[in-house]
Amino acid sequence: MRFLALVLGLLLLAPAARAEDGYDLWLRYKPVAESARVAYAARAAAIAPVAETPTLTVARAELERGLTGLVGQPASAAAGARDGVILLASGATPAITGLGLPLKTLGEEGYLIRTVTVGGKATTVIAANRDIGVLYGVFRYLSLIQTGQSVDKLDIVSVPKVKLRMLNHWDNLDRHVERGYSGQSIFDWWRLPGHVDPRMVDYARANASLGINGTVLNNVNAKADSLTAPFIAKAAALADTFRPYGIKVYLTARFSSPMEIGGLKTADPLDPAVRAFWKAKADEIYKTIPDFGGFLVKANSEGQPGPQDYGRTHVDGANMLADAVGPHGGVVFWRAFVYSHEQPEDRAKQGYNEFKPFDGQFRDNVVIQVKNGAIDFQPREPFHPLFGAMPKTNLGMEFQITKEYLGFSTHLVYLGPMFEETLASDTMAKGKGSTVAKVIDGSLDGRKLTAMAGVANIGSDRNWSGSQFDQANWYVFGRLAWDPEAGTQAIAQDWTRMTFGADPRLVTPVVSMMMGSREAAVDYMTPLGLHHQMGEGHHYGPGPWVSGGPRADWTSVYYAKASETGIGFDRTATGSNATAQYAPAVGACYADLKCVDEKDLLWFHHLPWDYRLKSGDTLWDGMVKRYGRGVSYVDGMNRTWAGLAPYVDARRHREVSDYLKIQRAEAQWWRDASIAWFQTFAKRPLPAGEPAPNHTLEYYKALGFPFAPGI
Amino acid sequence: MRFLALVLGLLLLAPAARAEDGYDLWLRYKPVAESARVAYAARAAAIAPVAETPTLTVARAELERGLTGLVGQPASAAAGARDGVILLASGATPAITGLGLPLKTLGEEGYLIRTVTVGGKATTVIAANRDIGVLYGVFRYLSLIQTGQSVDKLDIVSVPKVKLRMLNHWDNLDRHVERGYSGQSIFDWWRLPGHVDPRMVDYARANASLGINGTVLNNVNAKADSLTAPFIAKAAALADTFRPYGIKVYLTARFSSPMEIGGLKTADPLDPAVRAFWKAKADEIYKTIPDFGGFLVKANSEGQPGPQDYGRTHVDGANMLADAVGPHGGVVFWRAFVYSHEQPEDRAKQGYNEFKPFDGQFRDNVVIQVKNGAIDFQPREPFHPLFGAMPKTNLGMEFQITKEYLGFSTHLVYLGPMFEETLASDTMAKGKGSTVAKVIDGSLDGRKLTAMAGVANIGSDRNWSGSQFDQANWYVFGRLAWDPEAGTQAIAQDWTRMTFGADPRLVTPVVSMMMGSREAAVDYMTPLGLHHQMGEGHHYGPGPWVSGGPRADWTSVYYAKASETGIGFDRTATGSNATAQYAPAVGACYADLKCVDEKDLLWFHHLPWDYRLKSGDTLWDGMVKRYGRGVSYVDGMNRTWAGLAPYVDARRHREVSDYLKIQRAEAQWWRDASIAWFQTFAKRPLPAGEPAPNHTLEYYKALGFPFAPGI
Repeated sequence: MRFLALVLGLLLLAPAARAEDGYDLWLRYKPVAESARVAYAARAAAIAPVAETPTLTVARAELERGLTGLVGQPASAAAGARDGVILLASGATPAITGLGLPLKTLGEEGYLIRTVTVGGKATTVIAANRDIGVLYGVFRYLSLIQTGQSVDKLDIVSVPKVKLRMLNHWDNLDRHVERGYSGQSIFDWWRLPGHVDPRMVDYARANASLGINGTVLNNVNAKADSLTAPFIAKAAALADTFRPYGIKVYLTARFSSPMEIGGLKTADPLDPAVRAFWKAKADEIYKTIPDFGGFLVKANSEGQPGPQDYGRTHVDGANMLADAVGPHGGVVFWRAFVYSHEQPEDRAKQGYNEFKPFDGQFRDNVVIQVKNGAIDFQPREPFHPLFGAMPKTNLGMEFQITKEYLGFSTHLVYLGPMFEETLASDTMAKGKGSTVAKVIDGSLDGRKLTAMAGVANIGSDRNWSGSQFDQANWYVFGRLAWDPEAGTQAIAQDWTRMTFGADPRLVTPVVSMMMGSREAAVDYMTPLGLHHQMGEGHHYGPGPWVSGGPRADWTSVYYAKASETGIGFDRTATGSNATAQYAPAVGACYADLKCVDEKDLLWFHHLPWDYRLKSGDTLWDGMVKRYGRGVSYVDGMNRTWAGLAPYVDARRHREVSDYLKIQRAEAQWWRDASIAWFQTFAKRPLPAGEPAPNHTLEYYKALGFPFAPGI
Repeated sequence: MRFLALVLGLLLLAPAARAEDGYDLWLRYKPVAESARVAYAARAAAIAPVAETPTLTVARAELERGLTGLVGQPASAAAGARDGVILLASGATPAITGLGLPLKTLGEEGYLIRTVTVGGKATTVIAANRDIGVLYGVFRYLSLIQTGQSVDKLDIVSVPKVKLRMLNHWDNLDRHVERGYSGQSIFDWWRLPGHVDPRMVDYARANASLGINGTVLNNVNAKADSLTAPFIAKAAALADTFRPYGIKVYLTARFSSPMEIGGLKTADPLDPAVRAFWKAKADEIYKTIPDFGGFLVKANSEGQPGPQDYGRTHVDGANMLADAVGPHGGVVFWRAFVYSHEQPEDRAKQGYNEFKPFDGQFRDNVVIQVKNGAIDFQPREPFHPLFGAMPKTNLGMEFQITKEYLGFSTHLVYLGPMFEETLASDTMAKGKGSTVAKVIDGSLDGRKLTAMAGVANIGSDRNWSGSQFDQANWYVFGRLAWDPEAGTQAIAQDWTRMTFGADPRLVTPVVSMMMGSREAAVDYMTPLGLHHQMGEGHHYGPGPWVSGGPRADWTSVYYAKASETGIGFDRTATGSNATAQYAPAVGACYADLKCVDEKDLLWFHHLPWDYRLKSGDTLWDGMVKRYGRGVSYVDGMNRTWAGLAPYVDARRHREVSDYLKIQRAEAQWWRDASIAWFQTFAKRPLPAGEPAPNHTLEYYKALGFPFAPGI
């Protein structure tokens, strides 16, 4: 009977499998409700001809594809010839002369969508100064229909606030993805350039629909091979494919490449031969990829080579590369994720200490790429102290979209609120309102070269991201890169409508699930400011007992500092004094138990187990309750999702349902293992009503995962 | 312009992408021509109800799905109620009583399809003794329509000639596939058992459509982890999914598991604790997977542990495992691919030497699995001398479907003729007609437990096999496992019709391309009996200069034995005398230059460069011409395929076209590098009209492929 149920279940899914397996992402273009179709179709009855440039061709094709799916095949007609024509206008073309459109405000990538009358006929203009803006406008226009908004009287102007909106793929040349949980790299280096997988076009479409305009194809833990002629030719084939979609390709640059593929004995950035190597390499790349974006570099970090190997500085290294790509219009992203294993200093302080002194010394075409927090993409981190601290430097944001520390692909964790929390943080660098978002969009310090990067969660899995809901994290990242002040609840609503459908009986509970999911993960993994408590190496599941190994700051015990007397990392003046890296008002608050938010409590403070939380609970009791609250939230998501079966296609419903069950079990595991471990220090009973862990501590410590993905 | 062409090209493909990307394999079920539809629909108007067993349920669902696609939705009706009912009958059910069907001849897995009259109404009966036969019959019935055959007067009886029709997946638990060129393992161990990818159902459907009834889930280079409780639970989830399709799961067994996961100090097969470990392990597995197939073992081969580590024999090892699974009905596949690095003997002789003496000593539930040739899946090998030499032993065939030595996924090489060549080889063991096929199907020696295994070419690539045409190799393997004497040209025709369409303007040239493709690969890689000339480690491209390393018989020079005086491996009495391992008449012919086929010439003989071939050419000239002939054939395939654009959907046409261009370049590379190398020995000019290699020998030797797949 069990077999039969399984078989029948899978069988029933089969017919739907081709239609709704997640491959289409938020670009499904399924027919709108018949009641709405007529009104849309009237406004989108025809598309005016466009110039056959690559980008306008794909823009028109996308619009046609979208409208065909949503409301029915559009016709072709010139604007003014009939009602309901959509006019795509790139630059001040004759067709839009006299309409008084504010093209000047749109910059190079912005667009406007406006309902106008042309020759007495109702017309929708999607206009931009350059072709790419038109494509962005087309995606926006389609999203209006996808999300059920009226297109009768449009007057939309949208301009990206960040110049470089980037995906970083930690993809190796053998297709293994470091910290990837959605299959192999989508970049099929082996068959490139002879064969370009058509999926590359869909990848470009999806990114363009969000305004993402750059992609780093390979891992920051780089191989020099990526800069050899065969791989440049492969990258060029991808660049050719992505170009119509406004996406530039970038490569990571292994700092020791001059030795590995250049035949030199050094990679010293002040050595003339080394500088000549990089100049020549840049020239070689730009010959094949004229609009190559530039290099992303991880140097002197976690074993990667860098300028410090030669007694030089990050400035020396970054500027050398910047000088190589600069004449071609290229950019160098230099990562601030740097910490030294010879350095006994609190790891959270090292990035600031290394980079802050160099403010103003980097070339104009260098972006210092800073992770959102000072440790490493933990479920929750206070904002990185470098934000606001380098006003004379281009500082770019690095978020992690792939859920290395958040349960891999099988935990439903919507990262929007996490990204938003960082972006909305007030650095106070120039007084109140100096948010991280304003650092990133350049407005705080008047910087022009602005950037936001997301470490991609994209892989060869049919659903791209490993899970249906992880698509939302790619989506929200893209939307925030366009506008770092956008609200992530509204973004979740858009995504849900486009991805699952606009029925409010579905949208409301799904968005509600999503919005609380990150806080739940923090609760069941690392409540109250705890951090870096995961399993060793693979970062899967709880490992609060991790200790030993090559360096203390790769262990859990280093960060929790649990003992019989208390728990937490003192980063106030009595401890590492990391709080002093923030603007005084910010640092003072973090250091003050009366001011610091309890969400960051143990990040900044070491406190006794009986410390009283605002709730009146002791620290121990509050911790235990928070673990349990996280588990309960996942329970709730399971219940909610089960009730949504009538509104979601069977295959995707089943997949999400399976994953939520996995998440439920693993949330329990996180709770139980963490409590079992910390109780050995706290030596206190669990608060009333909180069940004991399901297994002994030894059981949890003995679990091993030799084949975990993404290592 | 180049960009525009590319973009437009890819764009035009996009709409077709969802429909025809190869995912559907040969089970596309696209509508037949309207002119044919009426006749089919009349015969397939309704499906009679079936008992709701798992297998009959999927059989009925498959029939409905197929008919819906091919000719339109069938109705439901009892046989006799109307014309055109299809009646699925498992066992001697009342519905078929009195029809006089020869069920007795069908065995456990055979089926019959017969047009009969029931209650005066034209009815098609698909009958079998067990449910699985009905499912096989359904696939056969659908294939008749797919290939354009009449279904008006059917009288088909089909019974598999081989009992265990097996896929061997060389898939690691981290999803890397050894010698895989089609992405990752389709077995998503990480998410199992919590989530079963719906693709697992399509995998089962595809295999069942060929009659494949067993699959080994993991690599012969095994990890003991696959036998731990978590992985048994994962395998069980797959077994539950595959069961309705008649497919049993098997696991590889690492011989040292008793030490690695059993806490023992030895894996000696005569040690009682070791025997108890395996007994208990088998009991544990069967408790979770009641129809578990058994173990596949690679022991004492290429570094794998085995009984010889304890001074025991293959018989000791295999029989111990056989005793563990035997009470549950399980089987042990023990591989004969064994050669010792301490053994100076010709590697081609070692398998025979190791196993022949044990004939008759293995348990009844042991199958000795023998590769088709004595070295290792080379483009051409004479049949393995063990075939015919162990009449008292169950000998199973191991073919390699994945193209480790045949250009990976981007060379079009249809393996049907290669498999057929081996199966049709006459061992002469019991006189003329003692073909390998008759050894494998058990008829030569009256053996009941018969088996054919294929090393799978299946991976996570959307098209399953890495290329559209590699699907044909999976297909032909399955068809030959059902009937080792089936003709592979007819199979290619069936596959082409089902995969691309039945238009003879397409089918004839495609089948022609396919049928010559393997000989072409032999020509451009290893003509005239040369073997093992590929690149080191990855086995990609030519490496005739490979020498040194840990063992001579892993080098190319060991096998070619080229010198100024000649080339080839003397396996006659003046050499290794491997010919003496064959039946006298066979061995004598191989050893005799007047008798041996030139295709095997240098496999068995070392000959001077001026040796005269039958064509009158010298050996050197003939070699060079054959390399060139192989390249020319690929040229021809490119031309043929380009002309087929009107008959093939754009996306698949483009993919094949891209790959054929890659193959063309690599065939040239093989030719040029091989000629450049061997000319250093032959010191003779190229025959007139044969162009010099494009590059120097040093160029070819310097090529490196650090990120080649499948290693």
